[in-house]
Amino acid sequence: MPVDNSNMIKAIEDFPKQCKTALELPKGMSVSGKIDKIVVAGMGGSAVGGDLLKTYMHDSKIPVFVVRDYNIPNFVDENTLFFAVSYSGNTEETLSAYQEAVKKKAKIVAVTSGGQLGSLAKKAVKIPAGLQPRAALGYLFFPVLGVLNNSGIADTKGKDIEEMFEILEKTEDFKITGERIAKKIFQKTPIVYSSTLFGPISYRWKTQFNENSKSPAFNHVFAELNHNEIVGYQLMNKNEWSAIFIRDKFDNERIKLRMDITKEIISTRVEVEEIFTRGEGLLSRIFSGIYYGDFASYYLALANRIDPSPVNVIENLKKKLK
Amino acid sequence: MPVDNSNMIKAIEDFPKQCKTALELPKGMSVSGKIDKIVVAGMGGSAVGGDLLKTYMHDSKIPVFVVRDYNIPNFVDENTLFFAVSYSGNTEETLSAYQEAVKKKAKIVAVTSGGQLGSLAKKAVKIPAGLQPRAALGYLFFPVLGVLNNSGIADTKGKDIEEMFEILEKTEDFKITGERIAKKIFQKTPIVYSSTLFGPISYRWKTQFNENSKSPAFNHVFAELNHNEIVGYQLMNKNEWSAIFIRDKFDNERIKLRMDITKEIISTRVEVEEIFTRGEGLLSRIFSGIYYGDFASYYLALANRIDPSPVNVIENLKKKLK
Repeated sequence: MPVDNSNMIKAIEDFPKQCKTALELPKGMSVSGKIDKIVVAGMGGSAVGGDLLKTYMHDSKIPVFVVRDYNIPNFVDENTLFFAVSYSGNTEETLSAYQEAVKKKAKIVAVTSGGQLGSLAKKAVKIPAGLQPRAALGYLFFPVLGVLNNSGIADTKGKDIEEMFEILEKTEDFKITGERIAKKIFQKTPIVYSSTLFGPISYRWKTQFNENSKSPAFNHVFAELNHNEIVGYQLMNKNEWSAIFIRDKFDNERIKLRMDITKEIISTRVEVEEIFTRGEGLLSRIFSGIYYGDFASYYLALANRIDPSPVNVIENLKKKLK
Repeated sequence: MPVDNSNMIKAIEDFPKQCKTALELPKGMSVSGKIDKIVVAGMGGSAVGGDLLKTYMHDSKIPVFVVRDYNIPNFVDENTLFFAVSYSGNTEETLSAYQEAVKKKAKIVAVTSGGQLGSLAKKAVKIPAGLQPRAALGYLFFPVLGVLNNSGIADTKGKDIEEMFEILEKTEDFKITGERIAKKIFQKTPIVYSSTLFGPISYRWKTQFNENSKSPAFNHVFAELNHNEIVGYQLMNKNEWSAIFIRDKFDNERIKLRMDITKEIISTRVEVEEIFTRGEGLLSRIFSGIYYGDFASYYLALANRIDPSPVNVIENLKKKLK
């Protein structure tokens, strides 16, 4: 099988640059009036952008909901800030959710490169086209955050953004670690664990292993996995599975202890790799955690002798859905 | 290995009876005053009870949140109805969440058989002790629903409950199908799929396979899995994995089509089993979906020559956490 990786590796390497561009896109765009709920509707990478917003705003008095579905919750109303996020602008679930939000008179902002959503939405952050949606996470997340900052709902500090770029721009570090992880998990099924707060990061790793590496991959979160998934290791064989823990220095102390003990327990059944997020601010910690996984999934594709870019099965499915 | 299954099979067979008892427990207990959010805090089976409430109340104007963590969201306040659910009453994550909810002045109702939570909570539905928590799902769910009914927040119709019992009491049907599924998936890793609305059902199957059968098991939901997980089948071998689809006659038409097409696509890589929920009302459809999985996980334990009841690894972990 021919392996042409030029597009995906470039997109991953350019991720810090993409984030810089993305930060500029929503300049001046804001929403006003009462807002007591935030909903992000999207699928795949767009939904991960919503999940990351939920993590970023975990301390907020305004709840954030992520909708990965055709239908939206009944509590969406005129005080709901509704982000419809679709890279292509033609994701059918997101278009359906968008139409429902219009009926509910929500305050809607679209984030899209164009498509039907780009035509329909009165208020939209237009993002550059031409990437695989999963490689556009910067474009899918930062415009949402930017609109919230402009509207006085989020309060992102300049120093947090600076720290993030300082860390992400050491791209070589992420590459080296990503390549090392890919070698370790080659021909095994990776299972990625994190705290609940960082669940979107372990989920992103899982989806990148699925889409880039074409590999089965799963994720779960602490402490919940200690109540069920950990029991399943009893029937697991060392040469078939690999566990990856995403760790953060601000994890709850009990979660840290649970991770240590879980590692000890499951090490008899699987190899455990640990990845530590970097930085002090939440943006750095989130995106450094994600960046390692992007490279790991890329190098796992190479090891599998698979082109990371095309996802033929998804294209095939979309054709059959018509 | 000695296999003594008398406790677990009895608990599963008695599930309809448990639900009947559970419905009586919150008699007369209600909450009053303004309520604009509902939070259910719990882990494992208790959290699944919260997830099921979210599914049951998906049309509600009041959002339902499930917290599987030590910490609770910052938006919990005096208008939040907060259920602290722990079968033993000693689940440390739930106790921590409970303490935070007290500080936030939430309206708190505990559901527990006793323990520390039973001593601390001013308002509690006391449930019978002596089961494995995962075998007590009726006790963990119906008291919560009962308090919501008594408070005028939920409006469960008598005929929906009657239909549910009529269906669940045909226990033999669930047993036969569960045993058939267990045979099909023996020595494979099951992955359980459902709609997003029925995500708690596919998650329950996963956790039952983990805890009862001591098997690895995973779940995901439509349509999200069409955007990532489906690609991973490219590297999956037919003799290693098994997919189970939980289907419901009220699934969105596009979801039904996605399930059909996905089945066709992944059938080249795995065997696909389909389970259809039963009945018209949501309670019947939810609990019939779950009941098949309870039996399937039990019979998979037998096939694995493993006692379904004890979960030594969880007990071991709890000891190390002290």
